[in-house]
Amino acid sequence: MAPNKSEPEELALERHAQYRGKIEIGLKAPVQSYDDFAVWYTPGVAVPSRAIKNSRERVFEYTNKGNSVAIVTDGTRVLGLGNVGPEAALPVMEGKAMLFKYLGGVDAFPLCLATTDAEEIINAVKWLSPGFGGVNLEDIESPKCYYILERLQAELPELGVPVWHDDQQGTALVILAGLLNALKVVGKRLSEVTVALVGAGAANICVAKYLRVAGAKWGNLVVVDSRGILNREREDVRGRGEERAGERAGKSGESGESGESGDKSKWEICEKTNKEGRSGGIKEAMRGADVCVALSTPGPGVIKKEWVAGMADDAVVFACANPVPEIWPGEAKEAGARIVA
Amino acid sequence: MAPNKSEPEELALERHAQYRGKIEIGLKAPVQSYDDFAVWYTPGVAVPSRAIKNSRERVFEYTNKGNSVAIVTDGTRVLGLGNVGPEAALPVMEGKAMLFKYLGGVDAFPLCLATTDAEEIINAVKWLSPGFGGVNLEDIESPKCYYILERLQAELPELGVPVWHDDQQGTALVILAGLLNALKVVGKRLSEVTVALVGAGAANICVAKYLRVAGAKWGNLVVVDSRGILNREREDVRGRGEERAGERAGKSGESGESGESGDKSKWEICEKTNKEGRSGGIKEAMRGADVCVALSTPGPGVIKKEWVAGMADDAVVFACANPVPEIWPGEAKEAGARIVA
Repeated sequence: MAPNKSEPEELALERHAQYRGKIEIGLKAPVQSYDDFAVWYTPGVAVPSRAIKNSRERVFEYTNKGNSVAIVTDGTRVLGLGNVGPEAALPVMEGKAMLFKYLGGVDAFPLCLATTDAEEIINAVKWLSPGFGGVNLEDIESPKCYYILERLQAELPELGVPVWHDDQQGTALVILAGLLNALKVVGKRLSEVTVALVGAGAANICVAKYLRVAGAKWGNLVVVDSRGILNREREDVRGRGEERAGERAGKSGESGESGESGDKSKWEICEKTNKEGRSGGIKEAMRGADVCVALSTPGPGVIKKEWVAGMADDAVVFACANPVPEIWPGEAKEAGARIVA
Repeated sequence: MAPNKSEPEELALERHAQYRGKIEIGLKAPVQSYDDFAVWYTPGVAVPSRAIKNSRERVFEYTNKGNSVAIVTDGTRVLGLGNVGPEAALPVMEGKAMLFKYLGGVDAFPLCLATTDAEEIINAVKWLSPGFGGVNLEDIESPKCYYILERLQAELPELGVPVWHDDQQGTALVILAGLLNALKVVGKRLSEVTVALVGAGAANICVAKYLRVAGAKWGNLVVVDSRGILNREREDVRGRGEERAGERAGKSGESGESGESGDKSKWEICEKTNKEGRSGGIKEAMRGADVCVALSTPGPGVIKKEWVAGMADDAVVFACANPVPEIWPGEAKEAGARIVA
């Protein structure tokens, strides 16, 4: 059977059914006889348990906590599938756990929650935190995901473990690392380049923040969402923020609160970026840009070759839509981009 | 180094620190190259995810859900250690996960919750249920554990997965299985034997219920707690039930509700068991009994040899206190018990 493009999809059902999932619990320590259970379970285990009771930090010494991560999702924004619910999110979260182990040796365990309420997700993470060394929030819809992350990070000292949102910080960190290297190759500085950010979802909003922290100038970023370039004229973004604030004053509803952080972030982008006050769409955002980071709609054809051709010399193009990029890498290269990912 | 009785305790700290815990995440399916991630993760995984979205039951077909168990504790009643908190419970829960895998091939994962509130534990289990094939409640203090189990079992159709309390049903089922076999050996019938139940915690209350379901007569059971034999004169048990009911009528507090099921169970034991209306302590409960099931206080010396000698011919003694039984097996044998566990 010759490999072809549809093969992974065709194999996926067959393999998932064959193995019934893809992760399992393994024994980290050897068990040579039943006698070993006296060391790992009763009566021996009482000794490390008592030691941890007396000094909570020793949980990192006597358990797997330090190597373990909770992958927490409510299944509201899974891959390109959208809101599929916690059961349908499980194959994806098991896949993520597989990646954690295979690529990083980290023991990550999927927890697909039967609630989509921001406060309940926050509570669940708090209650689960004692057994994990970190929490990886995954595939939670925006703008709720901003609020959940902010709240949990604010409570970090109490939780005692770091909380990370893969779709914001994970993506942003990889993009930043790639871009820092790409700029070395083309001999440009992050503080001087202009960047077109295509897509204004959780991921790209976080990319903008990380670029800023790493030294890019707010004014040199141009962000474009499905309605066009973000600028100070975008009354729809400003308006939503005010409306939410009003709702919240009236009744302290979760949805109002959850939305607020997201709209605040987006309005902040409108105010701070795009010093030239550009308007228009992706085409106008990319004109003359040194870098294009696209995290928007699956392609191909979302970004056109001629728009890449209109970028600055030695352009860098990261087209990252899943599963198909906004422009195929070959096309971006043909159009003159120097570095494509 | 010669093995001696304290060896497991001595080795436990050393081994737990050496391995930093005892379970890890393993890959159930082989990964031969990065290309396999196209099948297990993106884009292939979208196919099983979509299939589950359309038909939730297929989660058992395409994920590990069917072989996975959540071990849920709040760390309030850990082994013989008591209320040690969720972090100190982790070594024990990891040990339980090890037993699940090693002895049964089941993938059980420890979840040590940072809440001791019954309603919050119930919520946590509900939210966690989509990713697991079953929930094993573990080391939760009584009487709260009765209430949590009752509530979750009442909501089973909604949860879609069975919930089990190891310290009640797990222990009771093993005791019952052992006793049925023991009675075959000594040629007695469960419907005719008299049974002294030493200890009236969550485990032995559940043993009493299981014995009854299997055919033992309520009247032939004599249960003894730390204040003596349970009978209709035990105003302390009756009184607590009424007091709780009053508290609850006044304010629907969780602690009132949580306690109620436990006190109700114990008062039911007072009313239904012990047809002879015995009073006194363990000694009086055991006099002439065919069977003694002890799940009370770690020994040795809690049950005396002469009390075993005073039991019926072909007596069966299950002394199960952890880590040291109420009477050493050898002593029980010497005192005339025919079957000892």
